[in-house]
Amino acid sequence: MRDEQMIGLARRLAAAARAETLPRFRGAGSVDDKGGASGFDPVTDADRAAERAMRAMIERERPDHGIAGEEYPDRIAGGPFTWSLDPVDGTRSFICGLPTWTTLIALLREGRPVVGVIDAPVLDELYVGWGGEAWLASGGSEQRIVASNCTDLAEARLSTTDPALFTGAARGAFDGLAARVRTVRYGHDGYAYARLAAGSLDLVIECGLKPFDYNALIPVVRGAGGVIADWEGGEAFEGGKIIAAATPELFEAARTVMKDAA
Amino acid sequence: MRDEQMIGLARRLAAAARAETLPRFRGAGSVDDKGGASGFDPVTDADRAAERAMRAMIERERPDHGIAGEEYPDRIAGGPFTWSLDPVDGTRSFICGLPTWTTLIALLREGRPVVGVIDAPVLDELYVGWGGEAWLASGGSEQRIVASNCTDLAEARLSTTDPALFTGAARGAFDGLAARVRTVRYGHDGYAYARLAAGSLDLVIECGLKPFDYNALIPVVRGAGGVIADWEGGEAFEGGKIIAAATPELFEAARTVMKDAA
Repeated sequence: MRDEQMIGLARRLAAAARAETLPRFRGAGSVDDKGGASGFDPVTDADRAAERAMRAMIERERPDHGIAGEEYPDRIAGGPFTWSLDPVDGTRSFICGLPTWTTLIALLREGRPVVGVIDAPVLDELYVGWGGEAWLASGGSEQRIVASNCTDLAEARLSTTDPALFTGAARGAFDGLAARVRTVRYGHDGYAYARLAAGSLDLVIECGLKPFDYNALIPVVRGAGGVIADWEGGEAFEGGKIIAAATPELFEAARTVMKDAA
Repeated sequence: MRDEQMIGLARRLAAAARAETLPRFRGAGSVDDKGGASGFDPVTDADRAAERAMRAMIERERPDHGIAGEEYPDRIAGGPFTWSLDPVDGTRSFICGLPTWTTLIALLREGRPVVGVIDAPVLDELYVGWGGEAWLASGGSEQRIVASNCTDLAEARLSTTDPALFTGAARGAFDGLAARVRTVRYGHDGYAYARLAAGSLDLVIECGLKPFDYNALIPVVRGAGGVIADWEGGEAFEGGKIIAAATPELFEAARTVMKDAA
């Protein structure tokens, strides 16, 4: 599979997902409650329909590719490639009519993400990362994006989706970090990593992310020159603990604070 | 001044502000630090330029109207009308390249807000409230908006900008409430009230809001059939403590929890 074909398919998957999600946004789509110990876990028609559309396209065009999606059982690969799909990342924003939910698409080769797409349909912003580059396609034009050059916690614009997701020592570590940075923003799920790649946020720290939540982020953040790894600085992502930073210096400063709480 | 003239001027003020804010979004506009005891308080070129543009329009067309804005000294009214202006509400979102900052415009008669505008330029969503109605203008079309019929905390979609702004007993009260609702979202400043008016959020609770932060919200929320008042259920808004709710029942349920912490 040629690289252009990978990118092309990833972008067509994003377009297929948009066709299912956008018409259901702020509409009357049903909301189920998957329930479970973690409380409210919304799953919308949009989630399921978008994942089905993406699966159908992959199965038709690349029957040897694996698929790991949020809503349906895994499909085992017949070769080195597997797609990681999160049709609506930020489902809570989606059901609250807020615009920064995204569709996350990653292509993994031998388990490592090589193409990442973060698509924000409401905003018409498609972020793509691949081969050490990242770009933003919006309104028919495309531009290269690069992370900021922020190296200092005191200057950093920090984001996390929900500070209540940090518990115990991690909560204390995060709160201590939040007190030291320039500003903190909440609530944007995968979209925060897109804006880090585009240079308008400098640091994102989260925990509890699943592989379909973070696989797509990795090529986008790294393609923009940023750093993304787990709280130990590795790629095990145990507990879904993620730090993304604009620069290696900023990553190390944040990791130093968070690692003891890992 | 006829009512249509008020609405027309309010909308032209929003358009004049957009012309100053949008070109500076994600751009190289300077960021100053107003400093002070509350820490980082960003003021951008966009803030100042948008307020100047709105002030100039009011002074030219309605020289007897007062002006109370965030960035410049008050202008005393020569009659019953005063404009309340917040050129960029959600300045932190603005400088982080996040799309849900708004421009807030209210027209007060004898101190009471009679017209409210919440304009979200990046999203091309203009929310207007007046005379017991509210509507959303977007993409050249307009539609009436109404708040949801949610009466039950357990079903409510709750939003607040930053939970760390609640301190002491208020923090405990808010956390207790957050544990009882269906879902909680953070980070949207005045835009959350617009989405409450449009029926996709049910409850917004905040503190520390200034008059230019909340004046514009009142006609929009009430025009959509929602309730907005302070934590005592009144209109003193002492400490900038606000509860907005889709229904009176939901308002009372939230007020009962928050009032002891007020």
